[in-house]
Amino acid sequence: MIRIGVIGYGYWGPNLVRNFAECGGAAVTAVCDTREERLAQVKRRYPGVATTTSATDLCTRSDVDAVVIATPVDRHFELGMAALRAGKHVLLEKPMASTSEQASRLIDEAASRRLVLMVDHTFVYTGAVRKMREMTDAGELGDIYYYDSVRINLGLFQHDVNVLWDLAVHDLAIMDYVLKDRPVSVSATGLAHVAGRPQNIAYMTMFFDSSLIAHVHVNWLSPVKVRRTLLGGSRRMVVFDDLEASEKIKVYDRGISLNPSPENVYQMLIGYRTGDMHAPQLAVTEALGVEALHFVDCVNNGKTPLTDGEAGLRVVRLLETASESMTEQGRPVSIGSPVG
Amino acid sequence: MIRIGVIGYGYWGPNLVRNFAECGGAAVTAVCDTREERLAQVKRRYPGVATTTSATDLCTRSDVDAVVIATPVDRHFELGMAALRAGKHVLLEKPMASTSEQASRLIDEAASRRLVLMVDHTFVYTGAVRKMREMTDAGELGDIYYYDSVRINLGLFQHDVNVLWDLAVHDLAIMDYVLKDRPVSVSATGLAHVAGRPQNIAYMTMFFDSSLIAHVHVNWLSPVKVRRTLLGGSRRMVVFDDLEASEKIKVYDRGISLNPSPENVYQMLIGYRTGDMHAPQLAVTEALGVEALHFVDCVNNGKTPLTDGEAGLRVVRLLETASESMTEQGRPVSIGSPVG
Amino acid sequence: MIRIGVIGYGYWGPNLVRNFAECGGAAVTAVCDTREERLAQVKRRYPGVATTTSATDLCTRSDVDAVVIATPVDRHFELGMAALRAGKHVLLEKPMASTSEQASRLIDEAASRRLVLMVDHTFVYTGAVRKMREMTDAGELGDIYYYDSVRINLGLFQHDVNVLWDLAVHDLAIMDYVLKDRPVSVSATGLAHVAGRPQNIAYMTMFFDSSLIAHVHVNWLSPVKVRRTLLGGSRRMVVFDDLEASEKIKVYDRGISLNPSPENVYQMLIGYRTGDMHAPQLAVTEALGVEALHFVDCVNNGKTPLTDGEAGLRVVRLLETASESMTEQGRPVSIGSPVG
Amino acid sequence: MIRIGVIGYGYWGPNLVRNFAECGGAAVTAVCDTREERLAQVKRRYPGVATTTSATDLCTRSDVDAVVIATPVDRHFELGMAALRAGKHVLLEKPMASTSEQASRLIDEAASRRLVLMVDHTFVYTGAVRKMREMTDAGELGDIYYYDSVRINLGLFQHDVNVLWDLAVHDLAIMDYVLKDRPVSVSATGLAHVAGRPQNIAYMTMFFDSSLIAHVHVNWLSPVKVRRTLLGGSRRMVVFDDLEASEKIKVYDRGISLNPSPENVYQMLIGYRTGDMHAPQLAVTEALGVEALHFVDCVNNGKTPLTDGEAGLRVVRLLETASESMTEQGRPVSIGSPVG
Repeated sequence: MIRIGVIGYGYWGPNLVRNFAECGGAAVTAVCDTREERLAQVKRRYPGVATTTSATDLCTRSDVDAVVIATPVDRHFELGMAALRAGKHVLLEKPMASTSEQASRLIDEAASRRLVLMVDHTFVYTGAVRKMREMTDAGELGDIYYYDSVRINLGLFQHDVNVLWDLAVHDLAIMDYVLKDRPVSVSATGLAHVAGRPQNIAYMTMFFDSSLIAHVHVNWLSPVKVRRTLLGGSRRMVVFDDLEASEKIKVYDRGISLNPSPENVYQMLIGYRTGDMHAPQLAVTEALGVEALHFVDCVNNGKTPLTDGEAGLRVVRLLETASESMTEQGRPVSIGSPVG
Repeated sequence: MIRIGVIGYGYWGPNLVRNFAECGGAAVTAVCDTREERLAQVKRRYPGVATTTSATDLCTRSDVDAVVIATPVDRHFELGMAALRAGKHVLLEKPMASTSEQASRLIDEAASRRLVLMVDHTFVYTGAVRKMREMTDAGELGDIYYYDSVRINLGLFQHDVNVLWDLAVHDLAIMDYVLKDRPVSVSATGLAHVAGRPQNIAYMTMFFDSSLIAHVHVNWLSPVKVRRTLLGGSRRMVVFDDLEASEKIKVYDRGISLNPSPENVYQMLIGYRTGDMHAPQLAVTEALGVEALHFVDCVNNGKTPLTDGEAGLRVVRLLETASESMTEQGRPVSIGSPVG
Repeated sequence: MIRIGVIGYGYWGPNLVRNFAECGGAAVTAVCDTREERLAQVKRRYPGVATTTSATDLCTRSDVDAVVIATPVDRHFELGMAALRAGKHVLLEKPMASTSEQASRLIDEAASRRLVLMVDHTFVYTGAVRKMREMTDAGELGDIYYYDSVRINLGLFQHDVNVLWDLAVHDLAIMDYVLKDRPVSVSATGLAHVAGRPQNIAYMTMFFDSSLIAHVHVNWLSPVKVRRTLLGGSRRMVVFDDLEASEKIKVYDRGISLNPSPENVYQMLIGYRTGDMHAPQLAVTEALGVEALHFVDCVNNGKTPLTDGEAGLRVVRLLETASESMTEQGRPVSIGSPVG
Repeated sequence: MIRIGVIGYGYWGPNLVRNFAECGGAAVTAVCDTREERLAQVKRRYPGVATTTSATDLCTRSDVDAVVIATPVDRHFELGMAALRAGKHVLLEKPMASTSEQASRLIDEAASRRLVLMVDHTFVYTGAVRKMREMTDAGELGDIYYYDSVRINLGLFQHDVNVLWDLAVHDLAIMDYVLKDRPVSVSATGLAHVAGRPQNIAYMTMFFDSSLIAHVHVNWLSPVKVRRTLLGGSRRMVVFDDLEASEKIKVYDRGISLNPSPENVYQMLIGYRTGDMHAPQLAVTEALGVEALHFVDCVNNGKTPLTDGEAGLRVVRLLETASESMTEQGRPVSIGSPVG
């Protein structure tokens, strides 16, 4: 039985507590938040769980084996290090840290202590994203040509991070899991419409060494909500629409076919293929429940999580690089090698 | 009665011929195409129209007052100049020319001869786009924050121009009409998935001197067709979905409200407004018919077209600049001042 | 403070308990269910609430002022009577009873004891349905021509009641609230696809004394989920799509206009009107919370509920009549006058 | 080369003329309409086609082998008989005739003269309906449980026929082709909202000897356009949405599974199956072109058309029976045996 302590009981914390509470093999033993009224709510729902306003206290409790950190991102590094140094396994909210240097240091700390460090890239544990990975693994899509995602809505303006860190982080986490290739450079553009606030609309293109291009469009100021990803391959193309109640994933047998031996006739070079569409039935288990079980399994059996610190670091590095490019109106910026 | 000669009877030419044939105040007297089988079709449908394979011949016919040019873009300059030099008014397909220099020379030629030079930016004559212009003119949207358009489908790969010149040209023409501000620089990214062909997927960000940002996403290799534009303002936001049978334009009374005197409390700075949605009834007249009438009116009364050579030049200059940026992975490029 | 006892903690009971627990002016003091494991769940979530497997016990507790009954319909009458006879106010799940005679007797019992008897027609308390009522009240739709509703999905086959009692009950409750006119006869058709089970697909037409016709289509065996109601009036028409995330209600300024003085020319008699569409912003408060407050208000202040026993009786009578017509392949059946 | 004469050049006639003109093996030689301006339009488009205002003249022309009749339905019988008696093959618009007796006499006349009599049930020749037929033929859907169709829009009120004859005729023609079983009785309801006009909204249930039920909902007074058919089978279910640009047909691997040996436990009797959805690529050839070729083939080779007089008669008989039931508020009416 893995005993879980959770730091941060705001928007996402209650979902983490609930899933670990209901997950076989784990028990939530303590919750920390600086706001007493949030702790009171924990007490009402989970009378047996200890509560505290001190994160230090939670990290050093003897009845806590693993710490789940669901605070604003600017406290991830400090709290993650404290938990690791206290010998606890750690599950960090996304993005993993405010800088790639911090992310690297967390990875090193966990490695040297042989502790599990996992990042809550929740989408990776959904039926839809797992299905996309299955298809890319099996080569069903052929060569991947592009990854294009739109994630927009009328959303809460963050005051500390730009819209990429809030919304694009989901797409980058999905891409990191679904695609084999890694971006080598980034061009990003965006704008802040409220003076003194970070960018609330952003566009981010990623280049690869292969014939792949990726683009993410995020916006906190859209009148309509869109959550749609296109994954275009030479053999098949996928549309992932997360707002569909069922049929979130549609696979199209469409594309172009190239004639390898054209006789100088342009119009014969490229043929079009329009075939069936197929929407596979997806697993409907709650992603966070799947993820909680996976975390417990990693802790119990010393496994490396699907969304380990390295995945978290790659995502943070992309966000960092894109933010840099965005300040220069899209100037392409190479993605540096890992820090540390 | 304005007598019209049409050069180019391929995909779009038949629509032009039909609309000028049915338009009061105009008559189609001659059609030119290099393909005899296309001319045979003209003869079957319009027995009274003269046909010729020689564009020079058509431009110099005494029974032609105005020449409509619907050939591939690389012939626009040469044919436009020939028609103007023969004293004919000219309606050019979009994009107006292959380079901004060519566009400028066409404008000068028409000006010096006091001839009408119009560009077929068809969307400008649709009920939907005219409604958007009405709203920006009346200030109904408040300050314009962003213009975001997606125009993707499984489309014919062009062999001479990249996807921006084929698809983004529509969005740039709409923007040129609907927005008062003009872009000052561009960052564009894209990729060619067929060796030796121009880019078939492209993303283009435009920066302005105001708090406006514009973005266009075009793709010839999408499994699904999307034609959607978001126009976000401080007071209202518009979604223009050209694939909707009715309700192409939806106006949302949504956005953020800024508190001008916050007391250092971040969360009070920005409020959210979620109100009604309204889909105005739109004029359903065929855009090309409206446009044909407008051209005839300009010729008869010496008016300047809504989509004159200057509008065509601005669009070509944006395409040129974006294509340049695209070869450098999004490096921002300033939009030069008009040539000539 | 109204003290609430809830009988039945299956699918809907937990929602009732939660809403009364969080509703100002009420407290849940006891919950009854025959299944111990359900009561154990109550205990975990609400340690202060008493639990019992005896409905009689619950009805006679001195710390219960009002009883909420969320059992299968065949126990509504017996439990409702027991609660009323014990001097408790009653909120009954829909449909209110298995027969209109039972419903009438419940009404009489409550009246003679001056107790509140309310039926949980939840939809009546949604923002969407209240908006529809507002529009019919204000005469905004003109004369009502038709009410047409589709409520289909792949749903749990009930073994004791046909699909009308399970699904159409929602539509009849909405109609009862939104329309001023009452049906005078019914023609219903349907079929059972599983031997020995009640009908799982049904169509029900209602006739009125006015120029109104109503139709409800329900189906437990549809591959897709549809929740859509059309309300057609002479001035405006409404589409209520409950599966829309926002814009559940769309009001169309469309219809026909009749020319009162035609000169024998058929084609001039009827004109068409196609105008704007408008989607009003709706209240987003949870319906059951609004309803719980309303029940408390009725109990405290002796008010008649919006969805009182009479409304519940009218709905049951329609279900009864339709079920009768359905056994005779649509033979029209008049709706009898109230029993009792 | 089959020489075609067309009677009626109103809404649908031009489509018929165009398709036969472009169809290999046929030529349109004459067109009849009582309105000179319609004939003038024929002359402009097809200078070589003879025109006449006399149907008798057209039927007896020596350069006409087959007559296509696209007039209002009340003239179908008279014109069809005239053409057959003149020895011409006949293609009749739907519905085939105003009464089943007329339909039967047309069938007899054609049979006795060994002439082809075909009815223009256009939908039967679409890729979508042919795919549905393929599936029912192959037994892919299992036992058919229901056929449910909605065909509503803001449409032209007919003054001579009710909405069933105008809109439901399409659904009945599709059903006649797709389903093996034939209805044995009908219950229909409806209402006329304009005094003196036929019903503009109607609901029609059809009963069969098998466990199949069919329902059609048609309405000329809907603010939104819907064209959707559900075809539910024990193994698979189909949604046919004719307004979808692509994916008109979606096949769902969903339904219930019945446990043949339940142990008195209701909840185990019925299981639910939720599987993949599949949208097959459909032929995109224009239906009327396919139909024109089929008619020519039947005339040339003495074949029986897919949509022969018998199919037309079955559809007319259903319309007749439903109209009768509709006047009695849904009283079920048996479908008589063929007249004649």
